[in-house]
Amino acid sequence: MLEDADYRCRLPDWRRYLMSADDAAQLIRDGMTVGMSGFTRAGEAKAVPLALARRAEQDPLQITLMTGASLGNDIDGILADAGVLARRMPFQVDRRLRGAINRGEVMFIDQHLSETAELLRNKQLNRLDVAVIEAVAITPEGYIVPTASVGNSASFVAQAERVIVELNVAAPAALIGLHDIYLPDMRPERHPIPIMAPDTRIGHPWIVVDPAKIAAIVVTEGHDSPSTVTPPSDATRHIAGHLIDFFENEVASGRLTPSLLPLQAGIGSVANAVMHGLMEGPFEDLTMYSEVLQDSTFDLLDSGRMRFASGSAITLSQACGERVWHNLERYRDRIVLRPQEISNHPGMVRRLGVIAINTALEFDIYGNVNSTHINASQMMNGIGGSGDFARNGQLSIFVANATAKKGELSSVVPFASHVDHCEHDVDVLVTEHGLADLRGLAPRERARRIIDHCAAPFFRPALNDYFERACARGGHTPHCLEEALSWHAAAQREGSMRSVLDR
Amino acid sequence: MLEDADYRCRLPDWRRYLMSADDAAQLIRDGMTVGMSGFTRAGEAKAVPLALARRAEQDPLQITLMTGASLGNDIDGILADAGVLARRMPFQVDRRLRGAINRGEVMFIDQHLSETAELLRNKQLNRLDVAVIEAVAITPEGYIVPTASVGNSASFVAQAERVIVELNVAAPAALIGLHDIYLPDMRPERHPIPIMAPDTRIGHPWIVVDPAKIAAIVVTEGHDSPSTVTPPSDATRHIAGHLIDFFENEVASGRLTPSLLPLQAGIGSVANAVMHGLMEGPFEDLTMYSEVLQDSTFDLLDSGRMRFASGSAITLSQACGERVWHNLERYRDRIVLRPQEISNHPGMVRRLGVIAINTALEFDIYGNVNSTHINASQMMNGIGGSGDFARNGQLSIFVANATAKKGELSSVVPFASHVDHCEHDVDVLVTEHGLADLRGLAPRERARRIIDHCAAPFFRPALNDYFERACARGGHTPHCLEEALSWHAAAQREGSMRSVLDR
Repeated sequence: MLEDADYRCRLPDWRRYLMSADDAAQLIRDGMTVGMSGFTRAGEAKAVPLALARRAEQDPLQITLMTGASLGNDIDGILADAGVLARRMPFQVDRRLRGAINRGEVMFIDQHLSETAELLRNKQLNRLDVAVIEAVAITPEGYIVPTASVGNSASFVAQAERVIVELNVAAPAALIGLHDIYLPDMRPERHPIPIMAPDTRIGHPWIVVDPAKIAAIVVTEGHDSPSTVTPPSDATRHIAGHLIDFFENEVASGRLTPSLLPLQAGIGSVANAVMHGLMEGPFEDLTMYSEVLQDSTFDLLDSGRMRFASGSAITLSQACGERVWHNLERYRDRIVLRPQEISNHPGMVRRLGVIAINTALEFDIYGNVNSTHINASQMMNGIGGSGDFARNGQLSIFVANATAKKGELSSVVPFASHVDHCEHDVDVLVTEHGLADLRGLAPRERARRIIDHCAAPFFRPALNDYFERACARGGHTPHCLEEALSWHAAAQREGSMRSVLDR
Repeated sequence: MLEDADYRCRLPDWRRYLMSADDAAQLIRDGMTVGMSGFTRAGEAKAVPLALARRAEQDPLQITLMTGASLGNDIDGILADAGVLARRMPFQVDRRLRGAINRGEVMFIDQHLSETAELLRNKQLNRLDVAVIEAVAITPEGYIVPTASVGNSASFVAQAERVIVELNVAAPAALIGLHDIYLPDMRPERHPIPIMAPDTRIGHPWIVVDPAKIAAIVVTEGHDSPSTVTPPSDATRHIAGHLIDFFENEVASGRLTPSLLPLQAGIGSVANAVMHGLMEGPFEDLTMYSEVLQDSTFDLLDSGRMRFASGSAITLSQACGERVWHNLERYRDRIVLRPQEISNHPGMVRRLGVIAINTALEFDIYGNVNSTHINASQMMNGIGGSGDFARNGQLSIFVANATAKKGELSSVVPFASHVDHCEHDVDVLVTEHGLADLRGLAPRERARRIIDHCAAPFFRPALNDYFERACARGGHTPHCLEEALSWHAAAQREGSMRSVLDR
């Protein structure tokens, strides 16, 4: 392993920084703010956080942990269980951490993924004490080549007092050269970011770091957690079908060309199914300007339908990973990994006119979208990058299954119990029952279209009944205040919204 | 008047386009989509819309009307009363139009002000049949020099089939040269917008138009409506004071320099009071990158505290107008008027790091902001540009009086009855009672700070009681669903929220 490391690390005398994860973890003290690599379970630091959790058993400590986005290898859960996390930002997907957040034990700061680095750079968050960054290699200058994600790593390295590098000798060496690291200038002298297309490269393939900051190098040999890809259900196939029909119509009507515009897709099986759907139809020369390059990205690249994909991380299933990681050279000129504040940059999203496809937990009859909370209170994962893309792209699409919990819960509700994306940010809604094109419609028109096209048929009469009674009271966005949240109250009380059907 | 027009219009043979407003209005037919100049009651077309309203009395017709933002001279009200407006976007502030919207008679499409031109350019809205643009001059090429606002006029001219110009000979000739008209390239070949600072000029001082589109020139002699500036109350003075203290502290702590960052301020007396407050304290070399240049902008320019102001319109009180309009030359090098998709561009707002100061109607204990709706349903004005700035700037601040209706209504509520700005987009909240700095805080922490710093003292016990009972139920964002909207229900039923104090 150390021989491998010698091959990966060209920093002279690097062995003087070499230490065990346990020793490196000692650099992190109670009360510190720590930034770790990791974005959608790709490229997270793997050894030091576990060492921190072990240490906390004897020597309790609490930190503020920032990452790119979610961590793999159960790390968020282990850290939460060990009581290490006082504060956590900007995103997570872990069941156990989620429990601690919802019990109020961990203060979770849910942020737009493009914003964390800005807040840090502008000193609007605590100063970063330590950065822990997974690397596939270290250059002779000490510069860090990240692994399967960039996330916030470059900003963490720039802002931290000290840097711990996890040199992962199991990460494919072919990752070297895939990254494009560029950080915006400090204001007020900030230049335009010169990206003109998803394939524009504007930076370096490594993270520049003051070598004096490097406090430890820990050699590791870990793997990212594979994504769990659930096979498409009838519902996801229908959603994909509706959306592909929509895109075909946009092309036919001249609003889009067959190469569409750069695509962004959220994580998950619905987004994957939609992307797979693009293999059919009149589409060619597609590009992505997204956060995560998933299985469907590589399938589209392999099929020849997609020309280029820009992201901040690569997250793959076991099967797709075996295909991709051993053949990364094949994709070298067709993918790039960027810092998340560039992959999700509102200005780039607006300039490129990204088509944003994200998943909703629920949406209301006027098109306000809840991406994060169950029944107003319980956090699922976080807003992630959806807000960066949905507000600023050319087309903002949200997809959802029309019901959850085997039809007990309607995803289309009178009043969203939490709003992450207001109606101004939502152009198209899709469920397995149909697609509601909301462009240019006023709220009362949106309601009819959303109910008729997206709601589960057996919930439609109750939604129409609510809407009609609300309209009788008047208003631009008619509501019946005293029952607006009654569907959620029923869900909370009875585990089902079906009692609203009996009213 | 025609001699004045000869002086203002250098298009050869222009008199062949000359016609009365009534004749020009005949070019607009039932069912058409019409784009008119006008932004925050500045630079709206004044004669043709009134002719349209007159005609509708004999010859009913309905159109879709797009503008920059709000219109002055009562035009929205007159058009609404005449039944001319089938659809209206993207903003309005008129009492009578608001009534028609809330009765469901006019379909109002409430949009982020930076987006309308994009939607139009990308054919996501109806094709524009006619543009009606107020001009201070027409160049020999037929290019249009707008008056006191740019708004969406340049895009309307580019997209419309036919263009009606209202040549307003009463508009000060010194407006010529103040504008900077630049429209983004069509995607996918869009170049970066090369603005580096509020004073960067990137375009032409006129709107380029294909002269073949010019269908009519109507000579007018009207004035913009002056803004109604209410003198600062104790409450607005306190709000301004809290915010000035906050800025002073940001400077003292090194997060901002004494020139702060480019400022954006919403319309109204609170924003004006805050801007006036910047005359005191350690501030110098200030700039604005905003939508509207108001009285306070010119006071700051005159005081020497502000170096430069970029906006899309100039809207002034009678008194300030008399000072400014007769001395516009004095400001020639210190102000610029841009298309609203540039003044409000998410990429520019992010690049410059705008400090966004906008007004909230209400906000909840977690910092979700309602800018638009009374009791969930009744539209006030619209989201305007607040979403363009609040999401993308370096600091997003919302101000409100802690109560409305003489203390009957709390602006701080358990659950916002409508969300325009989710908690992710809100850094600082201010009322006359204090300032809540929410940066880096989780929802439960935000709640304590918002209640303690911003709520009216006599509503605090009820808010704390709600929050504590909600926390006992758990959740990242704790709520009691069955009473979350009960404060608004009381307001709707009783005109007051005070009954919640008796629980």
